[in-house]
Amino acid sequence: MRQAGRYLPEYRELRAQAGDFLTLAGTPELACRVTLQPVERFGLDAAIIFSDILTIPHAMGLGLHFLPGEGPCFEHPVRDHHAIAALTPPDPETDLGYVMAALRLTRQELAGRIPLIGFAGSPWTLATYMVEGGSSKDFARIKAMVYDRPADAHALLEVLTRATTAYLNAQIAAGAQAVQIFDTWGGVLEPDHFRAFSRDYIARIIDGLTRTVDGRRVPVIVFTKNGGQWLEWLAETGCDALGLDWTTDPAEARRRVGDRVALQGNLDPCVLYARPTTVQSEVHRVCDRFGDEPGHVFNLGHGVHPAIDPEHVAALVAAVHERASGPGQPR
Amino acid sequence: MRQAGRYLPEYRELRAQAGDFLTLAGTPELACRVTLQPVERFGLDAAIIFSDILTIPHAMGLGLHFLPGEGPCFEHPVRDHHAIAALTPPDPETDLGYVMAALRLTRQELAGRIPLIGFAGSPWTLATYMVEGGSSKDFARIKAMVYDRPADAHALLEVLTRATTAYLNAQIAAGAQAVQIFDTWGGVLEPDHFRAFSRDYIARIIDGLTRTVDGRRVPVIVFTKNGGQWLEWLAETGCDALGLDWTTDPAEARRRVGDRVALQGNLDPCVLYARPTTVQSEVHRVCDRFGDEPGHVFNLGHGVHPAIDPEHVAALVAAVHERASGPGQPR
Repeated sequence: MRQAGRYLPEYRELRAQAGDFLTLAGTPELACRVTLQPVERFGLDAAIIFSDILTIPHAMGLGLHFLPGEGPCFEHPVRDHHAIAALTPPDPETDLGYVMAALRLTRQELAGRIPLIGFAGSPWTLATYMVEGGSSKDFARIKAMVYDRPADAHALLEVLTRATTAYLNAQIAAGAQAVQIFDTWGGVLEPDHFRAFSRDYIARIIDGLTRTVDGRRVPVIVFTKNGGQWLEWLAETGCDALGLDWTTDPAEARRRVGDRVALQGNLDPCVLYARPTTVQSEVHRVCDRFGDEPGHVFNLGHGVHPAIDPEHVAALVAAVHERASGPGQPR
Repeated sequence: MRQAGRYLPEYRELRAQAGDFLTLAGTPELACRVTLQPVERFGLDAAIIFSDILTIPHAMGLGLHFLPGEGPCFEHPVRDHHAIAALTPPDPETDLGYVMAALRLTRQELAGRIPLIGFAGSPWTLATYMVEGGSSKDFARIKAMVYDRPADAHALLEVLTRATTAYLNAQIAAGAQAVQIFDTWGGVLEPDHFRAFSRDYIARIIDGLTRTVDGRRVPVIVFTKNGGQWLEWLAETGCDALGLDWTTDPAEARRRVGDRVALQGNLDPCVLYARPTTVQSEVHRVCDRFGDEPGHVFNLGHGVHPAIDPEHVAALVAAVHERASGPGQPR
């Protein structure tokens, strides 16, 4: 999950220097520095590149900008089949070269100390922003499209699937040692539609990815927020790991997916609002629920909120490391 | 679910006359007229009283008001154990007499044609608004309370449970022929906490309710939004029916809860943004998924959105009635 960001004073400083979020994420040297900030501060076990899930629609010419307090907005939302037909997948090395440059630079800086994770939004998640024109509460426009004009929705998801496959393969070529697909909004769909409009496109992306580099596996992690009812379907995408949010019981999740995938998660990010001692006891509760199994990757169930005290994140990392190095525990 | 509201021009007219939402909901004659508006327009099979889940904290003196575009806000949020200790359950007949008067009047107006449903928010749902001071995106304050000061959270839920039990019993005495408990925010909790901080209090309320009036059963319906992972736990509350949102597969839900409860739902309210012919085919898809079983109560998975065209709701009702009266179908 997002580990850099506004909760860190060193991030706020760089962000102020850059002027705006897009400049920060779009300048490889700055994106690299932001990526490394939480790694250096907390001694994390993996880095995730600092970027945004909306880089692809931005590169497609939709005019991404961020309004204060309103989140991402597109100047040119995609509302009909003409707009969809006009979309072409961006070339990752030219149109999204700043992401690749940031990955190369960060790999260099990390010098093999810890792995670097790349990521992309799921086609469905990107489509929601592109059709709605930004964040949404009820997903009125994209759902009207799904119900009334499913062929348009599929055409949009199709071009996004091709774009995302090329984008993640370019990230892998640029040095990403694992990639995560964020399906932030898959959970707002009914089950049949989740399979047809989100899950199936994620599976197609995974099918098209480079899975081995220099003889090493490049794991693919899939995370559908509020997707706890559909873990079996998600495990069938061909991914190596599933992200769980905090509403899903880890033991139950393991029972349902068997040994097919690793499980990543699932501390409620709101635990970080609590006292450091509470944060630490909650870390242990999560590890207890996973039964200290080797297929567990400790993680939050979502990104760190902007108002979180960095000392609380430090307490979390210390508890995870203490647990992982404890007697009889896998490291 | 909420069936009256801003999507109806006759509602907007009465609302403009009343001046604000609280006057509309707080004046029995107006609340009765609003309740009957969708019943008369669409020929619905049940009426649900026009009110708000926040009537109880309002009667506790928290100073409810509505800010345009921001939803409900409390002037005096409840943040510490002093504020919690100062709360007393309102007397339903005096402090919330306007709700009881609206129910009596509406029963009279309905004259036995269709049943009248009363409702309340779940204690956990009320607590989120009372602690956060209004709507919330991340539930930072209430979750910090749950994690750091669980005794405070339980004390708050305790007084809300007593208040809600008395409130629903008064509604039943005033003429509500079924009652629904809306657990709008139970789905933001981790599983253990969902049981301890939401489910258990719902069960205690149900345990304290009058279940028979004049020899007739008063059914209790429980609806936890995003609660699809916890249907077994919800079915154990002693309720008669479970509301399902659209993310849960009806056949799977039936398999999991057995014959213990009726199931209510579960059309995605966003279907109403689609064309009337699509609305009708989606109604049939929902009924197909429930297999036309007698234990199915057709409903939306949530309330009608303000921008919906009333003609689309008319198409929905027509399709449900056509289906229910079709050959070999239960009515």
